Amino acid sequence: MRRTEFSITEPEETESFLQEMSFGVLGTIGEDGWPQLTPLNFAYQNGELYFHGSRVGSKMEHLKRDPRVTFSVAKEYAIIPSTFSDPKLACPATSYFKSVLIKGYAEPIADLDLKASALTAFMRKLQPEGGYAPIDPLDPDYTPQIKATAVVRIRITELSAKFKFGQNVKEPRFSKITEGLEQRNRPLDVETIELMRAYCPHHKEQP
Amino acid sequence: MRRTEFSITEPEETESFLQEMSFGVLGTIGEDGWPQLTPLNFAYQNGELYFHGSRVGSKMEHLKRDPRVTFSVAKEYAIIPSTFSDPKLACPATSYFKSVLIKGYAEPIADLDLKASALTAFMRKLQPEGGYAPIDPLDPDYTPQIKATAVVRIRITELSAKFKFGQNVKEPRFSKITEGLEQRNRPLDVETIELMRAYCPHHKEQP
Repeated sequence: MRRTEFSITEPEETESFLQEMSFGVLGTIGEDGWPQLTPLNFAYQNGELYFHGSRVGSKMEHLKRDPRVTFSVAKEYAIIPSTFSDPKLACPATSYFKSVLIKGYAEPIADLDLKASALTAFMRKLQPEGGYAPIDPLDPDYTPQIKATAVVRIRITELSAKFKFGQNVKEPRFSKITEGLEQRNRPLDVETIELMRAYCPHHKEQP
Repeated sequence: MRRTEFSITEPEETESFLQEMSFGVLGTIGEDGWPQLTPLNFAYQNGELYFHGSRVGSKMEHLKRDPRVTFSVAKEYAIIPSTFSDPKLACPATSYFKSVLIKGYAEPIADLDLKASALTAFMRKLQPEGGYAPIDPLDPDYTPQIKATAVVRIRITELSAKFKFGQNVKEPRFSKITEGLEQRNRPLDVETIELMRAYCPHHKEQP
């Protein structure tokens, strides 16, 4: 059940999450008809998603046979124990997270210049500090490497985002959860409180 | 291409990773024939995987139509910049990670006692500190909640693990990477060095 209160419709929010996250899970249809999942690093640029891999791997075989792919990028921020809001029942236990789902068609890139440009986007994201020669297909040190690498673009047909940070929670439960997180103080707990405040419609309504 | 040097065959290693990780990505086949991905919390117990959700959601609809599922649990430990091993080329840039892939058949659980036992496994994992009444179908505060929750068991038919920590890297590159990680000192870098040393066949051969 997709609950609309968790949907994020601002493209900037989604895009900044995709820039921040280094890896996601690619879903394809395997030869045996089963869903096939591959965790991999990705770059997101100009509304398209790129990943790379070996040219001879099974992933590339699946994509050739069926280019329909789904890509999931998710980050868990906090496990919310039931004790934050109910003294007896386990049921309110939940987790807060950001999740982006992308559907599209996978398209292997053949053109060496396009490949180099996608790999550059990749490096800019994952190694922003630089420290390597420009990825140039004419550079003989790079030419064979670029040729040997499969670069795939996902033409996105559908993108949806779900950020769950207690948007469905009313006072006084909302404050009990933020107080619980504050006391617990795990690495992402402070950030989780900020996101709860940013996204919670009930909280926004408070004076 | 599944490179055998990264395969983990010890069940204890895989199991302890599955116990440590709180969420993974479920892959099913959607109504439209596309792979459908859902990030969700899970519990792993007695060689079976459990998750829960709403009884009326689209996820449950997909599973009823096609019970073949794949489940991916992955954790990225470190982005390894090219500069750790090559002064010029971007190509050696990579990432080190643990990844477990599970294939199986999804089986919704109807029996209330079995459901309660699976939900208890769930809570024991995600809320080990306790603080809730035992999940008992006869407890009138729990009965309707247990009935309203869909609990699904994955009967595992295939499980594989890939832990990539530089097993393919020889000296002197291996030491350059560990030194680079030591200097960088991000939260998981020290743990990554330990895992490199634990898994690297070349390193083990050193006196």
